[in-house]
Amino acid sequence: VSEYIIGVDLGGTNVKTALVSRDKKILGKDSRPTRAEDGPNAVMECMTEGVEAVLKCSGVDKKDILAAGFGAPGPMNWQTGVVFSPPNLPGWKNVPLADEMQKRLGFPCFVDNDANVACYGEYWLGAGQGAENMCLLTLGTGVGGGIVVFGQLLRGIDGTAAEIGHLKVMRDGRLCGCGARGCLEAYASVTGMSRTAVEGIETGAKTILTEMCGGDLKKIDGKMISDGIAQGDEFSKHVMHETAVWLGIGIGSLINLLNPEKVVLCGGMIAAGDVLFNPIRETAKKMSFEVPGNRAEIVPAGLGADSGVIGSAGCALARYEAMAK
Amino acid sequence: VSEYIIGVDLGGTNVKTALVSRDKKILGKDSRPTRAEDGPNAVMECMTEGVEAVLKCSGVDKKDILAAGFGAPGPMNWQTGVVFSPPNLPGWKNVPLADEMQKRLGFPCFVDNDANVACYGEYWLGAGQGAENMCLLTLGTGVGGGIVVFGQLLRGIDGTAAEIGHLKVMRDGRLCGCGARGCLEAYASVTGMSRTAVEGIETGAKTILTEMCGGDLKKIDGKMISDGIAQGDEFSKHVMHETAVWLGIGIGSLINLLNPEKVVLCGGMIAAGDVLFNPIRETAKKMSFEVPGNRAEIVPAGLGADSGVIGSAGCALARYEAMAK
Repeated sequence: VSEYIIGVDLGGTNVKTALVSRDKKILGKDSRPTRAEDGPNAVMECMTEGVEAVLKCSGVDKKDILAAGFGAPGPMNWQTGVVFSPPNLPGWKNVPLADEMQKRLGFPCFVDNDANVACYGEYWLGAGQGAENMCLLTLGTGVGGGIVVFGQLLRGIDGTAAEIGHLKVMRDGRLCGCGARGCLEAYASVTGMSRTAVEGIETGAKTILTEMCGGDLKKIDGKMISDGIAQGDEFSKHVMHETAVWLGIGIGSLINLLNPEKVVLCGGMIAAGDVLFNPIRETAKKMSFEVPGNRAEIVPAGLGADSGVIGSAGCALARYEAMAK
Repeated sequence: VSEYIIGVDLGGTNVKTALVSRDKKILGKDSRPTRAEDGPNAVMECMTEGVEAVLKCSGVDKKDILAAGFGAPGPMNWQTGVVFSPPNLPGWKNVPLADEMQKRLGFPCFVDNDANVACYGEYWLGAGQGAENMCLLTLGTGVGGGIVVFGQLLRGIDGTAAEIGHLKVMRDGRLCGCGARGCLEAYASVTGMSRTAVEGIETGAKTILTEMCGGDLKKIDGKMISDGIAQGDEFSKHVMHETAVWLGIGIGSLINLLNPEKVVLCGGMIAAGDVLFNPIRETAKKMSFEVPGNRAEIVPAGLGADSGVIGSAGCALARYEAMAK
């Protein structure tokens, strides 16, 4: 019987591929540039090459592959495997990704939202292993989310669930890219954090950041704020702390709503460590009931940057098995 | 085989009982005062009498009862059926309600949180029938909640999930009874609505409510605000509208998080009708993504005040069947 699954993490910059065995061993990995600018066919060609590379380096034959899973940016229809038009994949419009990849590869292909597969990866093989009920936040340009309950991804009736970044945390608050006001994402993404810095500087805060960005506040990013903290800049610390408080408020809501065992954070921002996690934990506890607040462990991703690629494989296995039933 | 289930809704004021058949027909109902002030034994006696009354009036024999379900105020352990110490049941401390009732009645007894059973009732037999994924808000002294996903109540690892009233909607907002700030309940419960009225009057609003409460602002309640609206008082309308906007914000978060088919509202406040529902729907749509926002129907409870008693029976049936597997 086929005991291997392939996971592919389709990002705007890189395509990552992994070959995973049914018993959760990682047998091969590959990463290569997405060539997003060349359009859907080039990207699918690139993914095909990535799959062939992991097969070759791990010495596994194509016929021993059970299925492949693709974590792609949304919006999409996860059931049909059609990807609508992700902002960071130019030229994509209703691409039947699952069908196309199945034609190229010859085994069943499944497509899922990138934050969902990252959540599933952490549930299957990372910081959420052993939990039945967990959620994940990806802290990047935006705030993505995934939720596992009853040992399954919570996708909702249209597959749009788990938009944790679009929990409201502030009535009449900041305008968010989604068109609503006061979303967690508008405060707690890297973009939101930079906005907090810019607003502070514009209202008179004294900080090394002004110098670091050469007076061009638009250049302030997560890296610069981290560097500011490393150099002992109080304002940079304050900005990170504010970001953590917003995250704690959103996570407090999640804890009261889902009573999860774990809340896993991933994305570049988590490199900040205790400066970020301590105020998140403190705020989330204050913002939630005692029992679920004490229960929920707020932890960094166990798989580092590989939650998505491993989760894509795990998701594909779960969907393949559900289909076989 | 036994084809009947009993549902009991244990409220601070009344105990309601219903006899329901497995094919969802209601064969008998009873309601009687709880006698909460006489302590746990008197209350359990009262529930036993209620059960006997519905058996008698429906002509069903005790031996044909499959199980009974009890919807009780939390906090509790739903798995062991122990009720900790609900604020509106004086003298209750760690009462093993399921075991005690099973001793008295002779058939399996299950205990669940009152908002959860109301949600399950609406899912099983009310406005959520046919949905696989829904949530319910009870608008009363507080804001309770229930969530059904994958056709099951979402209880979380400790049974504390679905505290929809304790979603945060405002950083550094009103202090809530739970100890946190900015909870939906602090704005959108009947108590929260009255608080909005009082704050408005204290900051100079002119309204008929001042006269209606005889100058004693503490007397302002949901009924008075409804009466104010009926009499054309603009401020009363504004207070209801504000309450609806807060609800819309919280429900917008829920829609983005759960992508539910239905959001069901129950409790006395829903009698306000369109004055309440229209701004809730409008705000929730603005606060959520297009696809899930268009999907989620925001509707009043289909079972009126009986969601809880019918849901208790439905929950007991589901748990009995899960146990039997």
